[in-house]
Formats: sequence, structure tokens, C-alpha cells
Amino acid sequence: MEKKLARLKEILAEISDIEGAASLLGWDQQTYMPPGAAEQRGQQSGTLGKIAHQMGTSPEMGKLLEELGPYAESLDPDSDDARLIKFAIRDYERATRVPAEFIVERNRVLALANQAWTEARQTSNFEHFRPHLEKIMELTRRYVDFFPPADHPYDVLLDNFEPGMKTAEVKAIFDALRPQQVELIRAISERPQVDDSFLHQPFDEKKQWDFGVEVITRFGYDWNRGRQDKSAHPFTGGPGLFDVRITTRVDPNFLNTMLFGTMHECGHALYDQGADPALARTNLLGGASLAVHESQSRMWENLVGRSLPFWEHFYPRLQEYFPQLRELPLQRFYQGINKVQPSYIRVEADEATYNLHIMLRLEIEIALIEGRLPVRDLPAYWNAKMQEYLGIMPPDDARGVLQDIHWSWGLFGYFSTYALGNLISVQLWEKIKSDIPDLDDQIRAGKFEALLGWLRENIHRHGRKFMPQELVQRVTGSKIDPSPYMRYLRRKYSEIYGL
Amino acid sequence: MEKKLARLKEILAEISDIEGAASLLGWDQQTYMPPGAAEQRGQQSGTLGKIAHQMGTSPEMGKLLEELGPYAESLDPDSDDARLIKFAIRDYERATRVPAEFIVERNRVLALANQAWTEARQTSNFEHFRPHLEKIMELTRRYVDFFPPADHPYDVLLDNFEPGMKTAEVKAIFDALRPQQVELIRAISERPQVDDSFLHQPFDEKKQWDFGVEVITRFGYDWNRGRQDKSAHPFTGGPGLFDVRITTRVDPNFLNTMLFGTMHECGHALYDQGADPALARTNLLGGASLAVHESQSRMWENLVGRSLPFWEHFYPRLQEYFPQLRELPLQRFYQGINKVQPSYIRVEADEATYNLHIMLRLEIEIALIEGRLPVRDLPAYWNAKMQEYLGIMPPDDARGVLQDIHWSWGLFGYFSTYALGNLISVQLWEKIKSDIPDLDDQIRAGKFEALLGWLRENIHRHGRKFMPQELVQRVTGSKIDPSPYMRYLRRKYSEIYGL
Repeated sequence: MEKKLARLKEILAEISDIEGAASLLGWDQQTYMPPGAAEQRGQQSGTLGKIAHQMGTSPEMGKLLEELGPYAESLDPDSDDARLIKFAIRDYERATRVPAEFIVERNRVLALANQAWTEARQTSNFEHFRPHLEKIMELTRRYVDFFPPADHPYDVLLDNFEPGMKTAEVKAIFDALRPQQVELIRAISERPQVDDSFLHQPFDEKKQWDFGVEVITRFGYDWNRGRQDKSAHPFTGGPGLFDVRITTRVDPNFLNTMLFGTMHECGHALYDQGADPALARTNLLGGASLAVHESQSRMWENLVGRSLPFWEHFYPRLQEYFPQLRELPLQRFYQGINKVQPSYIRVEADEATYNLHIMLRLEIEIALIEGRLPVRDLPAYWNAKMQEYLGIMPPDDARGVLQDIHWSWGLFGYFSTYALGNLISVQLWEKIKSDIPDLDDQIRAGKFEALLGWLRENIHRHGRKFMPQELVQRVTGSKIDPSPYMRYLRRKYSEIYGL
Repeated sequence: MEKKLARLKEILAEISDIEGAASLLGWDQQTYMPPGAAEQRGQQSGTLGKIAHQMGTSPEMGKLLEELGPYAESLDPDSDDARLIKFAIRDYERATRVPAEFIVERNRVLALANQAWTEARQTSNFEHFRPHLEKIMELTRRYVDFFPPADHPYDVLLDNFEPGMKTAEVKAIFDALRPQQVELIRAISERPQVDDSFLHQPFDEKKQWDFGVEVITRFGYDWNRGRQDKSAHPFTGGPGLFDVRITTRVDPNFLNTMLFGTMHECGHALYDQGADPALARTNLLGGASLAVHESQSRMWENLVGRSLPFWEHFYPRLQEYFPQLRELPLQRFYQGINKVQPSYIRVEADEATYNLHIMLRLEIEIALIEGRLPVRDLPAYWNAKMQEYLGIMPPDDARGVLQDIHWSWGLFGYFSTYALGNLISVQLWEKIKSDIPDLDDQIRAGKFEALLGWLRENIHRHGRKFMPQELVQRVTGSKIDPSPYMRYLRRKYSEIYGL
């Protein structure tokens, strides 16, 4: 059986090598690839994906897993080997359920849909995208049908991004949160608005870059196993555990883009760089789930990067980089970067309003899957919900229902991970603060070793070994819970807005 | 049969995709990869190589080629399809002759040898490298034995880089050339030396880069399908026909490194960018051979880039970039960049001495393969030949027999392609000048469209369709011939040195 396990690891290592190469193709595509290479790159990525899929669904793989499944039961259930086999079986079963012809058909539909979405958003013309989205919904329902009946059909989609998570769980979490967030935003809206105009002025691009590098170096980003480049849409990627790359975007007239974008991606990268080296070239890399991943990016971006202790340390340094801030007191800077204001665009939303953008999307996705909501009614539904949750009405569909690229990529079940990530970040934070009582003082001194050490020990090193709810439970003693997040928002914004 | 051909092309396209991805891994390794990723990168490249090899030697491939071989005979022998099948058979036969275990053993020996060579060169200690080179020689002889007996065992090695070329042919070419080059160098050495001290002074790095970009843009390098980055050792690479990248090196105190290095790599890149798009994702990309490839890089570097007409156009521009050259007359600049001086290091050699470095290496490689020369006698043999050909004696082995990395990579049969490339470049040049009588005037006007057009039509578009001797014969009417090169050297240096 040891020999079979060794063979399984050999195959997984090669799949991991191919996926690592594919990841470099993707990174290069967003950073340095010349424009004329786009079609060729698509073919190359497609071929690598096909080969990795073939290796992961081969008859040999099936036979190995059939034999190793019972063996895994005999191992310590928390051991790397038991988890590796378990996840290999999970991945194999999911990959073999969906017929190759379906994937080909789906990719064809998505290529056209993505192009139509780009055009539709440019012209703010939902009707141009509608027929494509209808096809995508039909394909999504067929996709769900390849899987055994779940409590809710949406569970199948959610499971792609949050292994083991149920629609009912997410709904319950969001239902508990929504009225409190809506109420908080209403209360804030009745208070005098803070001023963030100083963030919108020219900031030297090179200095912005350098400041970002200084901050994430202090966070503990390992430049020996990573690098930072520019890209239109910041992301964390790269070919594997020993090469985790981030990208950032620098807006010459707005500081936040670089500042919080860089910290956000660094949070993702610290997670990926922190996996146990024993997991290299296995299927256990990549983090527990998208939500847990997002909890790490959000923690460094928001709980660290938008906190007062952080800026007590870094604000004087920022003022050295940007003399135009010298006259601005720390407190006003801190308020400005934490301004709350309902807005149309999710990716620009602040901490208090962000989750409501997500809840709206989740409701729409569930209604679409259930067939309750016809695609043609989407814009009206969207706008009504925006009014209900955020009290604003998008002036057009480009700033409304057409703003995200995800649906044109067929990504259903994805959005809620963003909000769940926010919740997990604060849930972990409460635990961290009880384990490291002087955390604020450390941050105030620009020290992050203890924080990173805690994350390494409790989250990062495990890679993908645990399911997200399982991991949160192991670390905090309870499953994903929205109350720490609400406590955090209330405390923070009561102070800033004098509620 | 059409269906079988389509299937063959499908497999070749996927192999090409994988090799393209592997090529990006290699490019990234030399440009942007963080140092901590080296081992991981080796695994990823190894896996892609293994998969491409498996696909190229699969039973399906063997069966397809068995059936398509006779079919190819029924096609126009110059058609893409006939050549594609022919080269697929050639590649298949070569790849299947060498057992997988041998390749594994060889890679293991080479990894250690390469490390030992690095250390040996640093300490100028040939004995440290000797046992590794002995093992490599033994493996190389075993490698040769996997192939059917050839006229000379070295033919098998040569054939890896110069398809179809025979040892006897190369020897005959070099034998005709050697005494004439030795005599020319002797004659030059009796003349007053030209001054090139102005090349050795500080040159702003950014301006150097910009000037190089300006030149190769004018040559016709397609930035839409390529890019330039920095690397320690300049090279041309990239993921495929639509993405041909070059790298360059900038020495802040010596102009030639960037200047001629950039033009050299651009010459390679123009060849690769110029292939017929119909050859994309086939086995017919990459150029006829290393020598033909080198003929293109050398043509742009030397026949264009070290010519007087070129500098009649570009020297005023260079003087704008570098005011320190304003007082230096064109003629003295031209002489300086064409200074002839025997030197120890091949990669720094001038046009008149370069080939002698190669001939020395070819003689050694043949003697090693024949078993006439024991590895332990290499340094003495090397130094004696240097004295004989170039009249100088390396002060140590680091500047002698240990200077090249190639042997530690097991690359035997490679070096002569550099000299053959020089010869082909001038042989083509004579033909080009008869086809484009006002070529010098065009270059003097900074115009390269006709030259590039000629190369595209006669060389580039064919990719790898023709064997090197076949291609040279088709284009010039004769096989590789050293006399144009000698005519060129005599004319050029008679003028510069007043012989």
C-alpha cells in the first residue's frame, strides 16, 4: 500500500508541476506577455489544463484511489497522508462527474459570453449580455445535475469554492448579519461625513511602490520566494510554494489603490508562502478555501492596515514619503481611510458596506438557480436590492448588474466567499488578540512576527488539509460566526463617527 | 490518411504547447524568478519535458508515423505536410533510440558535473572537473552507440544541432579556413593597433538600453510579438511564434556588451518571428539548425551592426545619446568596434579570431570521442593549440579549457555551429548584395525593410522545413562554403588595418 501511496504522490507531484507551469503562464499573461501572444497563450493554457485533467482522471488514478480510500481510514485522520488521499478522492470524483464534452461546450459558451459581457458593460446594455447569461444559467443547472442531489442545488456550486459549505449555512449567517449592517450604515449616514479628499491628489508612483514594498517586507513577505509586479487587476499567483508572486496597481492620483491593494495581496501571499514545505508538490496546497484565503488578505488589509495602531507606526513614515501629508493629523488620516459611504461598485466598497454587495449577489444567484428569477428581471431586481440595502440606485447597469466579470466566466457560488472571508478574518482576530494580548502594542511598534507566527502555526502551514468550517472550528472553537464582525464594525465606526 | 495526418498535427500542436510553456519557464528562470524557486523550477521543467517526450514517443505516435511515412512520399516533397511528417519521423526515431533510464542517469551525472564545473572554474582547478568530464565522455560514447553506425561517431552528435551535417564536411570547411585565418591574424598583428579605449568608459545604462531598442525597432523586431528584458546571459527564447523574447545585458562601463548583444539576439528573434504562421504549433518551428540560426544573429550583429554604412546612419544618433563621443570621428569609432586582438575568451573574441576558438574546440571534441585524447591531457592540448592558432597562452585554466559551460551540460557537437553560422552569414550576404545592389545605401539611410524582406522570403518563413545544407544550397546555389567569409574578412581588415 505504501508503494501505491508513493505512486499517487508521484502523479500528484506531476499534476502540481503542470499546474505550477500553467500558473506562470497566467501570471505572465497579466504582467509581461506581449499583446500578439493572446491566442497562443490560450492554447498553451488549454493544453496544460487538459493534460492535468487527464492525469487526474486517468484509470490508473481511479484504481489507486479505490485501493487507497480504505487505507486512508486506517491512518491518523489528521495526518498529511490521510488528508492527501481524502482530497485526491474528492477531486477525482468531482472531476470525473463532469463529461469532457460538457466542458468543451461550456468553454465555448463562456468565451462568447465573456466577450459579450465586455461589450455590454462598455455600452451599459444588459440586453446584449442577457442571452449569454441565460445559456450560462442553463449550463449551470445541467452542471449541478451531474452531482448527487444535495440539500439545495446551489450547494454543488458553493462546494467548488468552499468545500463542505451548505447554502443554508451561508444564508443563516448572512440573514443574521444583514439587518445589523443595514442599521449600522443608516446610523453612520446620519452623522457628519469624514473627509478623505487628501487621498485624492497626486502621489508619486515610484514612492507609492516603495512604501508598499516597505510595509509588506515588514509584514514578512518572503522576497526570496516571491516578487511583486504591476498588473491591471492585482492578484496573487505564481508557480508554487517556493514562488508566490503578487501584483499591485498604482493610481497616481489616489493612494488607496496601491496601499490597501498591496497589503491585501500580501495577505494572500503570506498564506501561500506559509504552507508546510512537506506539502510541496501535493494536492494540499492552496489554502482551505476561498473564504479562508480571503480572511488572510482582509486581515492584513483591514484589521492591520486600516487600524489606528498600524498608522501610529507607519504614518510618520508615509509623511516622509509624501510631504503633502505633513500637516494632516494622524486622526484625520485614519478617519479618511475608513470613510463609510454606500457606493455602486463592490470592489470599491468600504468595510461597513462591502458585505451587503455580496448578499445581494448571493440572493440573485440562489434565485437564478432555483429558477425563481428570470434573467431578464435581473437589472430591476438588482436595483431594488441596492435601494433596500444601501439606499442608493445605480444610474445604469454598467454600475449595477453588469459590474462584475464573474458570471460571464460561469462563476456561480464564488461571491459569498468574499463576505465569509471578512467574517472569518475578525473571528480569527478575536482569538489572536486573546492569544497575543499585546498585539496592538506590537503593531504600534511595527512588529508583525508574533501575528505572522500565529497565522503560520494555526492556519498557513496546513495548506488545504482542513475543510473551511473544520479549520475555523479547530482554531476558534466555533464555526463561522458573524458576531465578531459586527462587534468589530460597531466598535470601530462608533469611534470614528461618534455613534 | 487525412484523418491520421490531422491527428498527428493535433499531437504535435499539444507538444508544441507544452514546449512553449517550458520555454516560458526557462525565460522566467533567467529574468524574473526569485532565487528560492530554483529547485521547484527544475522539477516543473523536468515534468513538462517528460510529458512532451512521452507524447512524442507514444505507441500512437509510432503507429501514426509508420502509416504516414509512405503517404509523405506521395506528397510534394517541399510541401509543409511532407516536411512535417519527415521531421516527425526523424524526431521520433531519435527520441526512441535513447532509453529513458539512460536519460535519467545522464541528467544525474550532468547535474553534478555542472556544479563541479562552476566550482572548478571559480578556482581554476581542472582536476576538480576532470572526473566528471570523464564520466560525461563515457556517457557520450554510450549515447553514440544507441544510433546506427555513422561515417564517424561524432556525426551522431553533430546531427543533434546540424541535421544531416557530417564531421568530414565540417573538418574540410575548417581545414580550408584555418591557415587563412591564422595568416590574416598574423598580418594584422604586424600593423599598428587601433584604439578602442573610448568604448571603455561610463555609459548611462538607461540610454544604452534606449539606443538598443531604437536600433532593433528599426531592424524590424516586432514588439507586438515579443519583448526585451535583462538577463545575465543574453538569449532569445519565449513561448512560441507569436511571442519571441530577447534579453540583453548592459555593462555601465563598456558599450559593446549591450550594443552588439542586442543586435545579435534581435537577429535570432527576427528569424523566429519570421516563420510562416501556417507553421505555428507544428514541429517545423525553430529554424533549420543552430548554424543557420547563428547566421542570422551574426548577420545583424556583424555584417550590419559592425559595418561602416550602418554607423554612417547611426553614429550621429549614438553621439546624441552619448555626448562623450561627439569629438570622436566616425572612422575611429568604426575602427575601434572592429579591433582585432587575439584573446583567451571565446565569447569576447572579434570576427577575425572567433572561428579559431571554435576550431580548437572541434578538434578536441573529435579527439575525445575517438579516444585519442585522454581527458587529463585536455589543458595541455588546449594551451598548445591556443599558442598555435592565436599566438597566446592562457594564464590559467579558468581562462582556458574551463571557460565554457557547454561540456558540463554534455553538449558535444554544438560549438562548430557558431563558426558555421559565421560562414553562412557571409555566404548569404554575398547573395543578398547581388539581389539588392543598393543594400549599402539602404543601410546608410537606416532602412532595413528590403534586407528583412529578403531574409523572410528566403530563410525565415521556412522555419525548420529544410536541412541546413539543403537550405544554403537552395538559396545560394552551393553548400556551406568558407571562401565568402575569408573574402569578407580580408577586405574589411585590409581597409581597417591597411594590410
